[in-house]
Amino acid sequence: MIFTGSAHPGLAAEICAKLGEPLSPALLRRFANDCLQVQLQANCRERDVFIIQPLTPPVQEHLVELLLMLDAARGSSAARVTPVIPHYSYARSDKKEVPRVSIGARLIADLLVTAGANRVLTMAMHSPQVHGFFSVPVDHLHALAELAAHFRSPAPAEVTECGRSVPSSRTERAAGSAGERPAAPPVVVSPDLGYAKPAAAFARLLGLPVAAGAKQRFSDERVTITSIIGDIDDRHVIVIDDEIARGTTILELLDRLRDHRVRSVRIACTHGLFSDGALDRIAAAPEVTEIVCTNTVPLPQGLGNGKLRVLSVAPALAEAIRRIHLGESVSALFDHS
Amino acid sequence: MIFTGSAHPGLAAEICAKLGEPLSPALLRRFANDCLQVQLQANCRERDVFIIQPLTPPVQEHLVELLLMLDAARGSSAARVTPVIPHYSYARSDKKEVPRVSIGARLIADLLVTAGANRVLTMAMHSPQVHGFFSVPVDHLHALAELAAHFRSPAPAEVTECGRSVPSSRTERAAGSAGERPAAPPVVVSPDLGYAKPAAAFARLLGLPVAAGAKQRFSDERVTITSIIGDIDDRHVIVIDDEIARGTTILELLDRLRDHRVRSVRIACTHGLFSDGALDRIAAAPEVTEIVCTNTVPLPQGLGNGKLRVLSVAPALAEAIRRIHLGESVSALFDHS
Amino acid sequence: MIFTGSAHPGLAAEICAKLGEPLSPALLRRFANDCLQVQLQANCRERDVFIIQPLTPPVQEHLVELLLMLDAARGSSAARVTPVIPHYSYARSDKKEVPRVSIGARLIADLLVTAGANRVLTMAMHSPQVHGFFSVPVDHLHALAELAAHFRSPAPAEVTECGRSVPSSRTERAAGSAGERPAAPPVVVSPDLGYAKPAAAFARLLGLPVAAGAKQRFSDERVTITSIIGDIDDRHVIVIDDEIARGTTILELLDRLRDHRVRSVRIACTHGLFSDGALDRIAAAPEVTEIVCTNTVPLPQGLGNGKLRVLSVAPALAEAIRRIHLGESVSALFDHS
Amino acid sequence: MIFTGSAHPGLAAEICAKLGEPLSPALLRRFANDCLQVQLQANCRERDVFIIQPLTPPVQEHLVELLLMLDAARGSSAARVTPVIPHYSYARSDKKEVPRVSIGARLIADLLVTAGANRVLTMAMHSPQVHGFFSVPVDHLHALAELAAHFRSPAPAEVTECGRSVPSSRTERAAGSAGERPAAPPVVVSPDLGYAKPAAAFARLLGLPVAAGAKQRFSDERVTITSIIGDIDDRHVIVIDDEIARGTTILELLDRLRDHRVRSVRIACTHGLFSDGALDRIAAAPEVTEIVCTNTVPLPQGLGNGKLRVLSVAPALAEAIRRIHLGESVSALFDHS
Amino acid sequence: MIFTGSAHPGLAAEICAKLGEPLSPALLRRFANDCLQVQLQANCRERDVFIIQPLTPPVQEHLVELLLMLDAARGSSAARVTPVIPHYSYARSDKKEVPRVSIGARLIADLLVTAGANRVLTMAMHSPQVHGFFSVPVDHLHALAELAAHFRSPAPAEVTECGRSVPSSRTERAAGSAGERPAAPPVVVSPDLGYAKPAAAFARLLGLPVAAGAKQRFSDERVTITSIIGDIDDRHVIVIDDEIARGTTILELLDRLRDHRVRSVRIACTHGLFSDGALDRIAAAPEVTEIVCTNTVPLPQGLGNGKLRVLSVAPALAEAIRRIHLGESVSALFDHS
Amino acid sequence: MIFTGSAHPGLAAEICAKLGEPLSPALLRRFANDCLQVQLQANCRERDVFIIQPLTPPVQEHLVELLLMLDAARGSSAARVTPVIPHYSYARSDKKEVPRVSIGARLIADLLVTAGANRVLTMAMHSPQVHGFFSVPVDHLHALAELAAHFRSPAPAEVTECGRSVPSSRTERAAGSAGERPAAPPVVVSPDLGYAKPAAAFARLLGLPVAAGAKQRFSDERVTITSIIGDIDDRHVIVIDDEIARGTTILELLDRLRDHRVRSVRIACTHGLFSDGALDRIAAAPEVTEIVCTNTVPLPQGLGNGKLRVLSVAPALAEAIRRIHLGESVSALFDHS
Repeated sequence: MIFTGSAHPGLAAEICAKLGEPLSPALLRRFANDCLQVQLQANCRERDVFIIQPLTPPVQEHLVELLLMLDAARGSSAARVTPVIPHYSYARSDKKEVPRVSIGARLIADLLVTAGANRVLTMAMHSPQVHGFFSVPVDHLHALAELAAHFRSPAPAEVTECGRSVPSSRTERAAGSAGERPAAPPVVVSPDLGYAKPAAAFARLLGLPVAAGAKQRFSDERVTITSIIGDIDDRHVIVIDDEIARGTTILELLDRLRDHRVRSVRIACTHGLFSDGALDRIAAAPEVTEIVCTNTVPLPQGLGNGKLRVLSVAPALAEAIRRIHLGESVSALFDHS
Repeated sequence: MIFTGSAHPGLAAEICAKLGEPLSPALLRRFANDCLQVQLQANCRERDVFIIQPLTPPVQEHLVELLLMLDAARGSSAARVTPVIPHYSYARSDKKEVPRVSIGARLIADLLVTAGANRVLTMAMHSPQVHGFFSVPVDHLHALAELAAHFRSPAPAEVTECGRSVPSSRTERAAGSAGERPAAPPVVVSPDLGYAKPAAAFARLLGLPVAAGAKQRFSDERVTITSIIGDIDDRHVIVIDDEIARGTTILELLDRLRDHRVRSVRIACTHGLFSDGALDRIAAAPEVTEIVCTNTVPLPQGLGNGKLRVLSVAPALAEAIRRIHLGESVSALFDHS
Repeated sequence: MIFTGSAHPGLAAEICAKLGEPLSPALLRRFANDCLQVQLQANCRERDVFIIQPLTPPVQEHLVELLLMLDAARGSSAARVTPVIPHYSYARSDKKEVPRVSIGARLIADLLVTAGANRVLTMAMHSPQVHGFFSVPVDHLHALAELAAHFRSPAPAEVTECGRSVPSSRTERAAGSAGERPAAPPVVVSPDLGYAKPAAAFARLLGLPVAAGAKQRFSDERVTITSIIGDIDDRHVIVIDDEIARGTTILELLDRLRDHRVRSVRIACTHGLFSDGALDRIAAAPEVTEIVCTNTVPLPQGLGNGKLRVLSVAPALAEAIRRIHLGESVSALFDHS
Repeated sequence: MIFTGSAHPGLAAEICAKLGEPLSPALLRRFANDCLQVQLQANCRERDVFIIQPLTPPVQEHLVELLLMLDAARGSSAARVTPVIPHYSYARSDKKEVPRVSIGARLIADLLVTAGANRVLTMAMHSPQVHGFFSVPVDHLHALAELAAHFRSPAPAEVTECGRSVPSSRTERAAGSAGERPAAPPVVVSPDLGYAKPAAAFARLLGLPVAAGAKQRFSDERVTITSIIGDIDDRHVIVIDDEIARGTTILELLDRLRDHRVRSVRIACTHGLFSDGALDRIAAAPEVTEIVCTNTVPLPQGLGNGKLRVLSVAPALAEAIRRIHLGESVSALFDHS
Repeated sequence: MIFTGSAHPGLAAEICAKLGEPLSPALLRRFANDCLQVQLQANCRERDVFIIQPLTPPVQEHLVELLLMLDAARGSSAARVTPVIPHYSYARSDKKEVPRVSIGARLIADLLVTAGANRVLTMAMHSPQVHGFFSVPVDHLHALAELAAHFRSPAPAEVTECGRSVPSSRTERAAGSAGERPAAPPVVVSPDLGYAKPAAAFARLLGLPVAAGAKQRFSDERVTITSIIGDIDDRHVIVIDDEIARGTTILELLDRLRDHRVRSVRIACTHGLFSDGALDRIAAAPEVTEIVCTNTVPLPQGLGNGKLRVLSVAPALAEAIRRIHLGESVSALFDHS
Repeated sequence: MIFTGSAHPGLAAEICAKLGEPLSPALLRRFANDCLQVQLQANCRERDVFIIQPLTPPVQEHLVELLLMLDAARGSSAARVTPVIPHYSYARSDKKEVPRVSIGARLIADLLVTAGANRVLTMAMHSPQVHGFFSVPVDHLHALAELAAHFRSPAPAEVTECGRSVPSSRTERAAGSAGERPAAPPVVVSPDLGYAKPAAAFARLLGLPVAAGAKQRFSDERVTITSIIGDIDDRHVIVIDDEIARGTTILELLDRLRDHRVRSVRIACTHGLFSDGALDRIAAAPEVTEIVCTNTVPLPQGLGNGKLRVLSVAPALAEAIRRIHLGESVSALFDHS
């Protein structure tokens, strides 16, 4: 049985469509004192229940809603309750960079288990270690292969059914790439050394070299990319990150890339939040030719100058749910990576 | 050590002033992806930490903030961590009125313990049974005695230091009461049979009789007060409830009271949320002569036509914190009730 | 698989008969030092085990016996262990009315889970909040609908097969009711404001008005019903409560009712313990025309002057067990309420 | 702070006297429905609470009473709660001799911890392995040294202050022992091979040889001592066991000892329950010259023909409580054993 | 699904052969820093996983390897994980003989559960109480019946398929026994009073009398068997113990038996570790005619002078695994004992 | 109170010397069957117990020894038990790089808590996220500042008191550095992109640029450094890593560095295991002028050609222990980083 919270009903519908299963109804009520109540409106007794809810803004609302749904499912005698969290945004709070803070990713993991999660299905968490924060089994999917396929293939990758018309710049891009390759192959760039390892894995999938931005923290609030480690002068660049929110890091990276006279920039990420008009601000940079993300989170506001491509993770999540339900190997899904 | 979340810093400051202790600073950050982080900015190692945070709107934000603070305090090796929750608003979700919902009051209690609460200090929870939802010791204060003192005493009760000027209607009220008592003493009215027992306790403190509204549920969404059980015709009425949020129940009760030609209505509650302009809408009723609440939650929007009286719970909470810290009896505080 | 403790083997037999399942044998031994041992005498490995045991006097004996049976079933690798507790008598200890007592209903709930309960099936707990004391799923049946059906229907409700011959006073009662109704419809009376809400629900099922006794505590030991809230003068009365033990409250209520010159009294409760000769003492009151209870607990001593009617909860419990075992909705069972 | 349950107030008073501490009052109430409530009538906040309650008959009543007291102390914010259980009678249920029974000693240990026990002080548990059933620290005192001292010393061992007058047969016994020793030293006899190891330790303290009865189980209910392993013919015998309840084993052992023409029998045990008239039945055997036990349990019914000696464990328990409270070594107490 | 750790792959293979199931592969890696990693190389999702690993030397390596495998299986979403531990060697640490030590058998039991064990299958633990150290269901098989069958039957008992050629001395033994029985039946001897009870059970299976060695501890390190309790002079002797490691106790017992001029000695144990050349040293004693053990642990080094017989426990473990998997009674397996 | 396991008694002695506290004795016994027992030989009741044990080879022995000590301390009523683990070697198992393995760092963290750890003091864990694997408070020290101080300061840093005579090459080094600096400042090199972030932090402390090796996995077993990202040609190099065990990665990195004609290489790490002769093999490279590590682990075998410098972490650990014991801020210790 599949339920969805209010964070991303479109993705839930798409997953259900792939699975050929109906989306079970749930009723969210907000009381006069702002407390929430969620009623699962279908019998869950002894069923295998999946609840789809990425932790997207407003994060706290969506988190508490998910916790209430997990507890409702457990209390209704579900055989197993699996939150499906395509974007586990708290994963970024994965260490103590300053004293006396919570490691939020661990706390939320414990809260999910307290509320009744028997296992978790998630995607592209900020660091692979966050897997170990959960005391229940986790299936952790990656979107790097899908993203790499997009950059490799001349044929269009699957695009989400959101009806947004997308003027295809793919042919130009392919042509452009082809025309310039003799000079030098593109370089994959991670905005941060802390993400260099997954960026290198992504580069390997594409057979490309990798570089990374080095950040320096000037004060609690001001962190700046001071240099790029690796050779990127006069090259085409593919920037890869796990999440783009306000886009501050990307915009700063674009400045640094410009210092190195890069020829063009394509930007890829799994979780495209693009809050506060980030999409349009990034797309406004003339050297940016394409912005690729997935639909782990709802489509961002803004048009992105026609440069946005959204890949759907619904097929991957639907297949994982199918395998979890049937007890088939989920790791086999990703043998190619 | 006392910290406060962002829900009600004014109350925290007042409590600290009563205790003669400084309020320790905490820094709330909201990341670009809307996740929260709270840094406790004073060493908590082996300290007795209290964190003041009523669960007021936006409830989910304040709840997650509190959970992050509890976890931060525990992870920073606090000797003991006590959330002080003057308004535990989720207490209203204390049973399953419909199938397949979470009993939110129990879930939140478990989440607080998971996050690191070693004990809880709270006030006027919707039903006394919610005490049993916690697996850690709870000190559960009541405000009924304070509210009763207000209605009994001719001298002004302690009013919160919020600087709001209050044209005193107390003398008129006292005079009015005195003048009408020969006819019949006032009646305490509970808006709901489910609150009749605490209302009767409140009435006993004042030496008055009690009556209660009987509700009928017509559909999931429509509940109506259909009758008043007990004799209230031509009487002065004191309405008592634990929480007033949008005021729908109170407004409907006023209609029923009017059917019985009551002479005047004074309204008392512990948690005066008065959301969506409830204060002004209630105060607009001419038979309402006074609205009394406490400052467990921030002062409501609106002027309430000058009829609002706010009693401060800071002295009671400060005294309870002092006794908890020193290991003195808290129940002794309430021996008179 | 269904086992029974020694508290109420008759009910277990009746439930098994309804289900067409055999009652599995269990052997209770009492050692020379008064410690108990219970051996489950049928293989429970990977079975769905139900253990029927209301917490009736001697309550402590029956409780420990149940805990030993739960642990034995878990240790014998039962797939799931469900205590069926038609009368969870400790539910009355649901709050701290005096300081430094255990909230017994929460403690016993935790003990049941410690001993191996995976879920609980119970009936008519003293307050609905007790549901939230359990950290495992609870199916909480109500007997109000059955009791209401008895008072509504001219045809005899299902009576337990206990063989006690019951001279039918139903026709007279029906006639009497009919004859007097023109004057005024009967009133449902709750002995206590704390039970006024379920009493009102019961009254709604019968389309009748409701009233309630108001108690006053004079000392730790002396609590008295001082008045009746609501109009009952010269009316026929139906008293409803969840449990009648020594009957002190009911006898006192009868005094108050007499003060209001009620015409007749019928008494209904779910758990009819009737200890210390309560049945006969209540039945001795001439205005009491009928006493109705269910068989959640064994039949009381005494004849009750022929006024006792016992409704069987075995069909409801059997159906709930069947649905729990098969994973069907239990809440659907009670859609009409 | 020291409280006592209703199992053995005399011992509690004696311990308090030794410690020079008052016994804090607790109020046991039994509700009309036979449920218990215990109110601790002194502030326990941040105190080091000890609750004295051996699990003597009626065992289930005393167990549940103790669980309620532990929970009350925890809920009242005691700093630490230590049940003092001089006789942990469920220790005899320490293994699965038949399938599908609870290992009661483990279950009760878990229940005590669930109810709030932070540590346990107990005495002479049936097997030393039961220590490992507890997930909290256990101080496990032994009475063998005290019992051995009695048999060794010509001076009277400390006798409990219970006022029962005891005609001293000690001089005769000593004389008798002295007169017969030339022939052969006495033999220590364990009634059962399973207790042979502690019996051997006891014999070593006295410098005597050891023998043991070998039991055979004929059916579930019939177990017989078929032979004595070790040489006892024509010897004086000291029988040692941990607990004597109905005395069936001891009476049967006396038959076997008679077959071997033993000259005299002295009987020692820690927990002298002597239920069902066991004391008088054992004392009636002419070869039995003395019966020695301790006051871990209340004094038995019956006069025992003047043969009973009761040693007090209050000094040992008081000293252990003092050391636990002050953080001194308890094991040092028993260095001589 | 059945996996094996590296402790005893031969036994695992034999169990799998009996069950007709393949042994699933697992890959043990040792990192440069000596940390271990075990990869289960077959999909365990929703499978019933058994992991065979006796805790044989090097015990710590095998223990941590087992813990890693349990966690890997749980994290891979196994439906149920059962460690099969034919020799739970830490069971000997079952009590506190000196202060301030861990009760290792309880600690390891808790670690196994923490790592993911849902239940445990083990064999011939040092004391039956160790069963109670586990908080999950335990199936505790015994080898006494198999060992007794060997000593009773003239036909050869099943011998492990390990290919070691065994010159049969069984006929001589049988003849010898027969020839000498008229004089006196053999005696079963336990090396220690603490093992006297199981030794007596073993003796009963053979219809023989029992005797036991009495040990005395002279210092922390020196424990000596000072006497034999029971009559063994000029008798044939069968020594029974649960585990023989360095054989110190057995060699000392042989000295004492020689003092009593026993005619011959046969030695039986379940767990034949025979470390440090113990097998050959014991076999060198001329009165020792046979040494019988099982293959719960790998075959010892040394030839044992042709006196060693190894009984296979693979059929019993395979049958238990089959029954656990199918939910059939395991206790029924041992009804004859 | 401070105890040490057998992994690194030298460090424990040094820490105790710094604190002016005696090292409390503990007795490690290995039974004949290879099981361990550790007896704490000083009263721990209500004491603040620290147990020093880095997880060095043989890791499994040292781990189980530590678990037994933790449990012994808890069972002996220690007020608080803190394992001090200067090298938490399992931290490298912090994610699932292949399916169906345990995340060892999380499992061991859970085992430590199960065994009784109330908090943990550790140093330089492989990734900062491992902090979040613990459910108890962790104080996580870093050695980067100490290592940086060594490379910055002309004066000799504190060297461990191990008496190993160290021919000082510091002056040459400083001179050499000084002489070559005009050409280009040294570069800090991380052997792996996954360690690039801490390497960059280390570089920042020295005011130097950073570079990193990029690894490629060719098969499960073969991982090769294929390139260096960042500019290092003709530069002096400082290699930084957290742990050097067999040195395979470092030796391979040296090959790559040679490809870039680096002028000299200094190597720094926190945990210098140098197993299998790694020290001498690395020191044999002529361009390696210095190898710096700390004494979180015992000194390696081999002489390292006189190039080894060992910095002592005892002062830092001693100060942290002092602060933890006194409840002072530990994070304040590291304010400069």
